[in-house]
Amino acid sequence: MTRAARLDRPTRQAQIYEVAARVFCRKGYEKTSMGDIALAMRMTKAGVYHHIESKEDLLAAIIAYGMDVFERQVLDKVETIPDPLERLRATLRGHLLLVLRDRPKEVTVILHESSALPAAARAKINARKKRYIRFLEKTIRELVMRRIARRVDPSVATFALLGMVNWTYQWFQPGGRLNEAQLADAMTDFYLHGLLAPGARRDPKGGARRRRPAA
Amino acid sequence: MTRAARLDRPTRQAQIYEVAARVFCRKGYEKTSMGDIALAMRMTKAGVYHHIESKEDLLAAIIAYGMDVFERQVLDKVETIPDPLERLRATLRGHLLLVLRDRPKEVTVILHESSALPAAARAKINARKKRYIRFLEKTIRELVMRRIARRVDPSVATFALLGMVNWTYQWFQPGGRLNEAQLADAMTDFYLHGLLAPGARRDPKGGARRRRPAA
Repeated sequence: MTRAARLDRPTRQAQIYEVAARVFCRKGYEKTSMGDIALAMRMTKAGVYHHIESKEDLLAAIIAYGMDVFERQVLDKVETIPDPLERLRATLRGHLLLVLRDRPKEVTVILHESSALPAAARAKINARKKRYIRFLEKTIRELVMRRIARRVDPSVATFALLGMVNWTYQWFQPGGRLNEAQLADAMTDFYLHGLLAPGARRDPKGGARRRRPAA
Repeated sequence: MTRAARLDRPTRQAQIYEVAARVFCRKGYEKTSMGDIALAMRMTKAGVYHHIESKEDLLAAIIAYGMDVFERQVLDKVETIPDPLERLRATLRGHLLLVLRDRPKEVTVILHESSALPAAARAKINARKKRYIRFLEKTIRELVMRRIARRVDPSVATFALLGMVNWTYQWFQPGGRLNEAQLADAMTDFYLHGLLAPGARRDPKGGARRRRPAA
């Protein structure tokens, strides 16, 4: 199935991916059987096998689906923003909101479980992740060259960003003191303060500069 | 065995923990058998069972051992530093170097695998992790109150730090462009820039301020 087809239908398949991601995260990939997936889906095992050939294929499909969602909801939208600072701000905020709110978080968690995949499937997903890493490094390098950012190492700054964003699912609890948007704003602000040269911290159009993020 | 006893003897047990952590990380906890551990240790299964009662106990012991190492090599040393900025800088750098260099990284990775533990063992390890989180929040709050740090949310800044540090094992390759100490310095510098108020970025005694970390 093409990527567009996967995304345009809110398919039975997408539902399977989201439910299966939850079961894998709760029970662990190794311990989960196709019977567990069927039970969670309220389907027969034969019904599940109609959509999915094996547990390994299912994991690969969930990860591809997670990347589809990320690329469609975040990366494809921000890549064309001409101003590099706005591009980075929108990327960081969009990625945080995706992790925190927009999808069952298990689909995001499972993106980091690709070690259980066979080598070919793993290489494919790593190439997609690398595209994102290169995009971040290039954007940060552009900010450094234009002296909007401090003279940081673009790779260090890129992995600092990914660490901050990807770690949030380990600890964020919905319903706490900060909601998802407040946390995304506070993290974005925190990160950009580390990156940018003094005086370069322009705000997005119309936004008041908050020095105290969501306290 | 007491914590001090565990640490003072470079015991057969510590070796088992480090080798087992490697096997768990390579093969996955669920898929690993006690036979695999014995094979990697070049011991008989009976020999391994002489030290360890079950696979679950082994995981709990590795995690406790990883926390022992972290507390002894990082937290116990920095907790008494009176100046909060020096305290935070030493914590961040020490934690990064521990993750990057000082121990088989698998012992560190496995600290985040506590979901496979029974509830009581998990609660115990979570309390130890919480001690570290509270220490970071308190130090950052002190920096904010003394206006050395910007008015950030101490919890957001704490989890930003943990994300940056804990994510490094996902991508850092020894032998690359930056060595472990350079990366630890660059990350520490990057983080403190995000946190501190302009003008407050004092360097540790005698250290020249590097605006370009390890490029």
